[in-house]
Amino acid sequence: MATFPYPLPRTGIGVDVHAYAPEDDPQPLWLGGLHWEGERGLAGHSDGDPVAHAAADALFSAAGVGDLGTHFGTDRPEYAGASGLTLLAEAARIVRDAGFEIGNVAVQLIGNRPKFTPRRDESEAALTQAAGAPVSVSATTSDRLGFTGRGEGIAAVATAVVVSVRQP
Amino acid sequence: MATFPYPLPRTGIGVDVHAYAPEDDPQPLWLGGLHWEGERGLAGHSDGDPVAHAAADALFSAAGVGDLGTHFGTDRPEYAGASGLTLLAEAARIVRDAGFEIGNVAVQLIGNRPKFTPRRDESEAALTQAAGAPVSVSATTSDRLGFTGRGEGIAAVATAVVVSVRQP
Amino acid sequence: MATFPYPLPRTGIGVDVHAYAPEDDPQPLWLGGLHWEGERGLAGHSDGDPVAHAAADALFSAAGVGDLGTHFGTDRPEYAGASGLTLLAEAARIVRDAGFEIGNVAVQLIGNRPKFTPRRDESEAALTQAAGAPVSVSATTSDRLGFTGRGEGIAAVATAVVVSVRQP
Repeated sequence: MATFPYPLPRTGIGVDVHAYAPEDDPQPLWLGGLHWEGERGLAGHSDGDPVAHAAADALFSAAGVGDLGTHFGTDRPEYAGASGLTLLAEAARIVRDAGFEIGNVAVQLIGNRPKFTPRRDESEAALTQAAGAPVSVSATTSDRLGFTGRGEGIAAVATAVVVSVRQP
Repeated sequence: MATFPYPLPRTGIGVDVHAYAPEDDPQPLWLGGLHWEGERGLAGHSDGDPVAHAAADALFSAAGVGDLGTHFGTDRPEYAGASGLTLLAEAARIVRDAGFEIGNVAVQLIGNRPKFTPRRDESEAALTQAAGAPVSVSATTSDRLGFTGRGEGIAAVATAVVVSVRQP
Repeated sequence: MATFPYPLPRTGIGVDVHAYAPEDDPQPLWLGGLHWEGERGLAGHSDGDPVAHAAADALFSAAGVGDLGTHFGTDRPEYAGASGLTLLAEAARIVRDAGFEIGNVAVQLIGNRPKFTPRRDESEAALTQAAGAPVSVSATTSDRLGFTGRGEGIAAVATAVVVSVRQP
């Protein structure tokens, strides 16, 4: 009865949240694969980039091959301090090695700052190059509500499409 | 090696949150493209309809053409007070002009009230007409947790599918 | 102008949140279709499994056929205490009966505990069997922020792909 003669695309979801680093242990801010000079940084096992991490998790989720914790968790010290771009590129490689083509990844950043729009193109270019597939990034606030609205941290939510390169 | 002979569908994500308008500046409630008589309204640059806004942002995100802030932000005074349906219709037009066909948009509303189910069909019909593609709306609560659970505002999260009408 | 000769896949979204059951009314924990011995349980009309519920809601959302509340709400006493696997299987049946093939469902769990990874394969197998389609489950925390970070409850967010089995 199925009318779709190819493997159906699969979708995935990824949410990532990082709290701001404590004031007595300031960190640089990495967001969307970019360094943001003069902006308060986030805490994290790696560079704390929620945009890149959510993108990587959406890819893992779509392919059904685990998650960030499985692949890059605290028991993998070689990834301590790794850049979000490195993790996203490695995630894309793992997903392709598992037999999937990547359609796209779309990420939305939720936070009060930094003002993302002026560097959107730069961020999308960096993430797209890392993933080897189109990555779009949008930004919003939570209207002063919740932990993002109170400025306690930054959240990102991502979705992705992959398709098996094997015939059904 | 790719077995998928058409442009892969792309997915997008959109989250939108609006706080309730302050009691000394009450607003009408617009939600899912509908006016809700007698319900407490939300604050916002436009009509504050998180369902329509999340839907529009999911379309922008899927197509990789910016976001609500880019297209309808506070620096675009002509959209001040614009209805969510107007913004969604305009978003769909922008996405199509960028070369994409729209598959669908799916939105979930997260909030304590209003009770959405009795008007779901009406809302879906209004949003579907605005987008020119199927829009589904579901509703849930956050079980009294977080800002939606405390009744501070309403959130909506949306996903969308678009596909390039250009051959790969 | 459309170059896509099949019905476009549709995507859906589902968020589900359950608070922990009060200490004077302890419940068993059901999560991802599994019972978690010795872990604090969640409150809910059914078994309170946010992973299975978000998965079911993402399927309903993708197909545009209502939501958990419509199909299994408190006005449907026959579902009181129903297992998440039962609800997911029933949701998949409803979506197929409405004329859709299911591509996949991807769920991400957001919470401090239990540690999910050791039982991921077991959970994915149970949910995949219930849905009759691939279900992936990933897990993350919200870095001690928000209601999940404070350990007040567990959230899950899911996305799904379905496609109409009817020719366009």
